Amino acid sequence: MFDESPSEAWHIRYGSIPPDLPDLSAFLSHRSVRHYEDRPIPDSIIRGLVAAAQSAATSSNLQLWSIVSVQDADNRAKIAELCGNQDHVRTCGHFFAFLADVHRVRTAAHLANEPGDGLDYTEFFTMAVIDAALACERMVCAAESLGLGICYIGGLRNDPEGVKQLLGLPEGTFGVFGLCLGWPSPPVTAEIKPRLAQEAIWFQERYADEPKFAEYDNRMRDFYVSQHMKGEATWSMRSGRRVGTKKLTGREVLMKWLQGQGFLRR
Amino acid sequence: MFDESPSEAWHIRYGSIPPDLPDLSAFLSHRSVRHYEDRPIPDSIIRGLVAAAQSAATSSNLQLWSIVSVQDADNRAKIAELCGNQDHVRTCGHFFAFLADVHRVRTAAHLANEPGDGLDYTEFFTMAVIDAALACERMVCAAESLGLGICYIGGLRNDPEGVKQLLGLPEGTFGVFGLCLGWPSPPVTAEIKPRLAQEAIWFQERYADEPKFAEYDNRMRDFYVSQHMKGEATWSMRSGRRVGTKKLTGREVLMKWLQGQGFLRR
Repeated sequence: MFDESPSEAWHIRYGSIPPDLPDLSAFLSHRSVRHYEDRPIPDSIIRGLVAAAQSAATSSNLQLWSIVSVQDADNRAKIAELCGNQDHVRTCGHFFAFLADVHRVRTAAHLANEPGDGLDYTEFFTMAVIDAALACERMVCAAESLGLGICYIGGLRNDPEGVKQLLGLPEGTFGVFGLCLGWPSPPVTAEIKPRLAQEAIWFQERYADEPKFAEYDNRMRDFYVSQHMKGEATWSMRSGRRVGTKKLTGREVLMKWLQGQGFLRR
Repeated sequence: MFDESPSEAWHIRYGSIPPDLPDLSAFLSHRSVRHYEDRPIPDSIIRGLVAAAQSAATSSNLQLWSIVSVQDADNRAKIAELCGNQDHVRTCGHFFAFLADVHRVRTAAHLANEPGDGLDYTEFFTMAVIDAALACERMVCAAESLGLGICYIGGLRNDPEGVKQLLGLPEGTFGVFGLCLGWPSPPVTAEIKPRLAQEAIWFQERYADEPKFAEYDNRMRDFYVSQHMKGEATWSMRSGRRVGTKKLTGREVLMKWLQGQGFLRR
């Protein structure tokens, strides 16, 4: 479906001449896909994708994550609304809610007569979020290798309590993000998005604290114009607005909500 | 290097008869590799892997992560010690420290005359950890497709202040985990590790709160015995011990340290 060569993908990402690259085309041409064909994803593929997710590394084999498939039409409509009313959440072939989950291992600890009293530390919240993200991204790479398109849904954090009620989440679980999966509806208009130059995010031996995104600001302004996105703005301007308190879209409650849910207590 | 078929990998993961699976062999046979050949990884591969990492999804294109390559022998010895003195950190062909990074976007916000005052919320810590993990797992999938072996290093969180000093990390950055990369040294003795049954981590519409890991406890006891790991123990027993306060290996300071570093303040 995505058929850029590694060199083409590099050129779109960085706007620079590609070096001699190994064949990583399957991993360089990701983009978010928000328009899907009305065609089901076979169960055998979904089970394979779950196996791929479970094949990701997990710290100390604790497997601090779970997934909930939301396929019922009513539930899907409800979760789409909770996620900021995004249409592709409603229309995608499969929707997974990815959870950070220390509940299962706490149950296991108690059955083994262990207190599990480390689980309310920030360390285990961090570990569970990492576990969920590693599992999901391996699922994504596997899905894309089969021609599926995906879109991450950070909006699952807009209303953590609403998600908890809808999915029946116990203490020790948290909906970290959602994942839409589906067959991309042609023509695929989603573009590979330019990224910061490697020099801006990759340091040698020590972090070099000098901003290196001026050229990216220019590249992104051109990209936004080419995508007919309104208003001439650089990456810094758009990102700067995005990280202000006004744009938290409900997520300002996270610390308090997570502590109520058994995370981040110390 | 890893040549299990999807069906073979499934059987090792779950101990059950595999269903009809799509060809996901590249994604099902991951294992941690801790023994490497003394053979360098070409720069073109490393640059390609960084491009793969940057091709992962990132929330609102904020790119809240960075990497530091630690290749100098002295620095490598120091970071190996900080990570709990793990030999493969010293011996791997390439070592990346993966950072959650809101520092760069804060700088961008200030240059755009925006306050960036949302960045100390728990939401942005969560987002940055997710961004770093997605980037890394895409790099890992790409690396494994080229025959490289990898090992995640959660030990990078054992001494966050020591890592900060060694890598010169500014406020707004946090060493989330390390990644060892190298050519697996044959014979590859690392085994695919069994995982919880899909029914134990994957729910339909709602979280089902009944433990489903009894059969896994038995499978893992057999696996530990087959790996000559001492002491007969189930997954629940091992995991239960791991999540007690005694096993935090320095990471109990994370909340306080992260708040000092500008994260998780509200």
